[in-house]
Amino acid sequence: MTQQQRLALTEIFSHLPFSITGDPVEQRVKMEAALTRIPLAGDVTVATGSLGGIPVLIIDSQGVDTSKVLLHFHGGVYVLGSARAGAGLAAALGRSAGMRVISVDYRLAPENPYPAALDDAVAAYRAALEQTPTSHLAVSGESAGGGLATALMVRLAAEDLPLPAASVLLSPWVDLTLAGDTMVSKASIDPSVLTPEGLRERVPDYVGDVDPATPLVSPIFADLTGLPPTLIQVGSHEILLDDAVRLAGVAAAHDVNVTLQVTPKVPHVFQAFAAILDEGKAAVEQVGAFLRAYVGMVRSD
Amino acid sequence: MTQQQRLALTEIFSHLPFSITGDPVEQRVKMEAALTRIPLAGDVTVATGSLGGIPVLIIDSQGVDTSKVLLHFHGGVYVLGSARAGAGLAAALGRSAGMRVISVDYRLAPENPYPAALDDAVAAYRAALEQTPTSHLAVSGESAGGGLATALMVRLAAEDLPLPAASVLLSPWVDLTLAGDTMVSKASIDPSVLTPEGLRERVPDYVGDVDPATPLVSPIFADLTGLPPTLIQVGSHEILLDDAVRLAGVAAAHDVNVTLQVTPKVPHVFQAFAAILDEGKAAVEQVGAFLRAYVGMVRSD
Repeated sequence: MTQQQRLALTEIFSHLPFSITGDPVEQRVKMEAALTRIPLAGDVTVATGSLGGIPVLIIDSQGVDTSKVLLHFHGGVYVLGSARAGAGLAAALGRSAGMRVISVDYRLAPENPYPAALDDAVAAYRAALEQTPTSHLAVSGESAGGGLATALMVRLAAEDLPLPAASVLLSPWVDLTLAGDTMVSKASIDPSVLTPEGLRERVPDYVGDVDPATPLVSPIFADLTGLPPTLIQVGSHEILLDDAVRLAGVAAAHDVNVTLQVTPKVPHVFQAFAAILDEGKAAVEQVGAFLRAYVGMVRSD
Repeated sequence: MTQQQRLALTEIFSHLPFSITGDPVEQRVKMEAALTRIPLAGDVTVATGSLGGIPVLIIDSQGVDTSKVLLHFHGGVYVLGSARAGAGLAAALGRSAGMRVISVDYRLAPENPYPAALDDAVAAYRAALEQTPTSHLAVSGESAGGGLATALMVRLAAEDLPLPAASVLLSPWVDLTLAGDTMVSKASIDPSVLTPEGLRERVPDYVGDVDPATPLVSPIFADLTGLPPTLIQVGSHEILLDDAVRLAGVAAAHDVNVTLQVTPKVPHVFQAFAAILDEGKAAVEQVGAFLRAYVGMVRSD
């Protein structure tokens, strides 16, 4: 039934009651309302907390090993979204990996442009390091959160801080110059709220006066040497497909253990719809298998 | 011990007693002698046969399901190599996947330039189809054999023939225009017999009077729509790294279920050294897991 599921999902995407364009404050409220309407699984507990002074949500599913921590960064083009709005997906990743998720409520643009979100990510990571050895620590993110997780790792490497054991990037937005071929070639079939025009409108909110090609803004231009084993997942019906593909290529060129998984004909962050989409369920299972392979182990080199 | 293993492997690679340059007939003999010196595992049986008029080797390991067939294409820049010389790797793939391997002794250049090898691949595949349903059939290849397997699938799709259930491409050579960035950037650290100069020397042998950018010669330029779930593996210390990365990108753009796995700091077709390299063993296991997930199942769409 996946063909039918895909059509259903496209239908949902075409009627999402929020947009990445327009007044951010208004859209944040709409996005929050839409995404928090979906109840979390009954065994998921969500607690508010703080990590390095940054507000976080601590998300546990029954049976996870709370000594293993997945530091997660939600999506929302750096302008929208919240740890709570993204808790459903984050919980699913944690359950699949058997890990606790700590989802970071980093500051949003335009009120707080770059490097505010990155500074918050670093602060939260540093604090996580005090509680959790890197062998038990991974980072993840979807969309802009995937870009932020990548930029975080680039900065950790540059500052000689210990990197996590693994990273998982779902439909990462890693090129704020919007130069990927699929920004054009997939625009007509990408059903998500992400549009080239919408992204173009939002980029200045986050980058402010900085060049969008700055490596810590667009980690596709960064030296990715030293990144841990990294899983990148993306759908082929995404304008951000090329962000994922090119990130894998740059990581590979820099000797990173990188796996790129492309799921055909599904939209942006399709893993959030695992409950109604077989491909989403399979992708979340693959995230779990990947994290289980690298987190909580002693590395041989 | 993987760092030490990697150094050992680099040492082996730097002293391989054959070259892709020079007289092909002479190098074929040397390559055959070098690669067949390594004994096959004790439980591997190798039988000669013929498929669609093309000579093949039928390679079974103990316990494999002989109703599942992996049609394999060996490497050797379309000029060297043989099913027998590549039997060790082919047997390892089959064992990991629980499948019979049929490795095709396609005609070699320069005696038989394009499209001889491809015609042989198609003939063998057509004959395999008569014995094995596509649900139980996969294709694989390493290096030039990976390019040939890809070209085979492009031609099957173009001719409306049923495609296999899955494909596995190890360090595939898919761009005979040699345009990948890593053709230059990785040349100094790639320890394999493949050199940009060597490839440049061999390309005319295979392409003959045809443009090297012909899609069935360099499937990186082909429409890959309709390809089955495909696993691409490559090492990051390869001049062919970009062939693999770009192939994944093209496949993704064409809505193929594609997984790219990049293993850091290992050379061309490192899976052939699974016996002495942990990364090779892990990669062969991943090939097996991938094929087990897609071969012998009923597809849902």
